[in-house]
Amino acid sequence: MDQNTQKPVSPGTSNLADEDLTQAVLATFEHSQSERFQQVMQSLVRHVHAFAEEVELTEEEWFKGIDFLTRTGHITDDKRQEFVLLSDILGVSMLVIGLNQKKSALATASTVFGPFFVENSPHFENGDDIANGASGEPCFMYGRVLSTKGDLIPGAHIDIWQADDNGFYDVQHKETSHVYGRGHLSSDKEGKYCFWSVRPEAYPIPQDGPVGELLDAANRSPMRPAHVHFLIKVSGYKPLITHVFKQDDPYLDSDAVFGVRTSLITSFERHEPGMAPDGKRMNVPFYTMHYDFLLDPAADEE
Amino acid sequence: MDQNTQKPVSPGTSNLADEDLTQAVLATFEHSQSERFQQVMQSLVRHVHAFAEEVELTEEEWFKGIDFLTRTGHITDDKRQEFVLLSDILGVSMLVIGLNQKKSALATASTVFGPFFVENSPHFENGDDIANGASGEPCFMYGRVLSTKGDLIPGAHIDIWQADDNGFYDVQHKETSHVYGRGHLSSDKEGKYCFWSVRPEAYPIPQDGPVGELLDAANRSPMRPAHVHFLIKVSGYKPLITHVFKQDDPYLDSDAVFGVRTSLITSFERHEPGMAPDGKRMNVPFYTMHYDFLLDPAADEE
Ligand SMILES: [Cu+2]
Ligand SMILES: [Fe+3]
Ligand SMILES: [Fe+3]
Repeated sequence: MDQNTQKPVSPGTSNLADEDLTQAVLATFEHSQSERFQQVMQSLVRHVHAFAEEVELTEEEWFKGIDFLTRTGHITDDKRQEFVLLSDILGVSMLVIGLNQKKSALATASTVFGPFFVENSPHFENGDDIANGASGEPCFMYGRVLSTKGDLIPGAHIDIWQADDNGFYDVQHKETSHVYGRGHLSSDKEGKYCFWSVRPEAYPIPQDGPVGELLDAANRSPMRPAHVHFLIKVSGYKPLITHVFKQDDPYLDSDAVFGVRTSLITSFERHEPGMAPDGKRMNVPFYTMHYDFLLDPAADEE
Repeated sequence: MDQNTQKPVSPGTSNLADEDLTQAVLATFEHSQSERFQQVMQSLVRHVHAFAEEVELTEEEWFKGIDFLTRTGHITDDKRQEFVLLSDILGVSMLVIGLNQKKSALATASTVFGPFFVENSPHFENGDDIANGASGEPCFMYGRVLSTKGDLIPGAHIDIWQADDNGFYDVQHKETSHVYGRGHLSSDKEGKYCFWSVRPEAYPIPQDGPVGELLDAANRSPMRPAHVHFLIKVSGYKPLITHVFKQDDPYLDSDAVFGVRTSLITSFERHEPGMAPDGKRMNVPFYTMHYDFLLDPAADEE
């Protein structure tokens, strides 16, 4: 970075008092392999040091912080991402999404990725039931994938994941590896998608780990309003990570992870037993959810 | 906290732009179980958000950060503490020590704890050899534990740990659990301690994990000047976590973890074969290191 050429020679690293110490740490990043890495690390060092100084962090608190991070790391595995959950409840995830929303006003809003996405979900065809035994009331979800100009987008990869009506994702059951409420499919020739699943319910984020302790210590609610996760990818367009939220959910204005966008709220309409939109005859009441996703063109197509 | 009583009602959590989002997250900590927890968390949220905004953290960088923390957690176990190492190389460990050094000018300076301490090290008597096969030149280390008023302190618990002359701590050998260069003993009736070990050498901090990647990306040296770790605890006095550094080490002014205090540097004197200070007859050249540790009284004894 240009401004670095005028900086004094790096101070030594011994006998450093607070301000000199921060300067010495910053100096050690001055020969970084990339300017961006240097910029990010120097900013991080400045803010973390400023935090520790502002609160006069005690050694005991430092040890607790190390222990917290260690346990957060140890509870994280390929089915649970406690660091993502931590980022979510501190509003960092939504902040980053906000900073990167260089979307047109028409494009569907993004929201948090969340800790429960799993790579390589089962493949389904349009019209299939992805519930696969998830408990809950049957719900037919359908809509289209479109460009913000209104072009239908066929062949978009659509990953869907949701909790059952007890508020649990399949991966939260430690004893079994039964996949439910999760899958991917592709939009059809007319950009349409549709599938059966269950109606989502509000649920508490996992409270049995370090993040749960943190919420407890803050007397914070762990509840998230009912939602279904969508990840949509197709070449030529910006990937979309989002949810569809259920209208009238009591937690829409107090989401534990700050993820609600009103444009993502829609009705899950109740129907008496009878014919569903796909022609299926239902013997029990069922729900329908309709939502169209609008994608912005990829950066290099603009 | 008093000032909170005048704050507006918590904003809702939906459709939040950057600044409102930060305010909403801060508000969720306003009913914390302790004022101190609230203070620490609100400061942390403010600084982490300020960091992400300042660098306009991208979603890709956020994912990299989550991955970095996850791998840091997974490489950490009861013998390796990568989060401590991370805190060390970012100068956070020394900063916290500096903020908490409410010591008299006479007391021995503290320095970083480091990632290689192990609970329940083997017990030794004064005069024993704690090297236990560690490669390196024999070194007799001795001195006293004193109060800052000059009172001799008997019965102080002294934990010692150091690397061998290849720069490895015992716990860095993944295949074996052979303990070396590590142990604890007590100061005798006259406050004295003494033990044999090996002369320490400068070493690189572990580079095979996420912290190593970070140093690499910064083109930073991983070297630490030669040192021996001491942890001294005795009732009535503040615990002391420190090192003794070897005089004339080439890395004294570029310690990767910013831990050097000139008051902790001392000579490791070379001697030709002959009689050691404890009367032991040495057939090979050997070294002696002499250092007195001065402890401040515990806070409630002041
Ligand atoms: Cu800051
Ligand atoms: Fe979710
Ligand atoms: Fe060390």
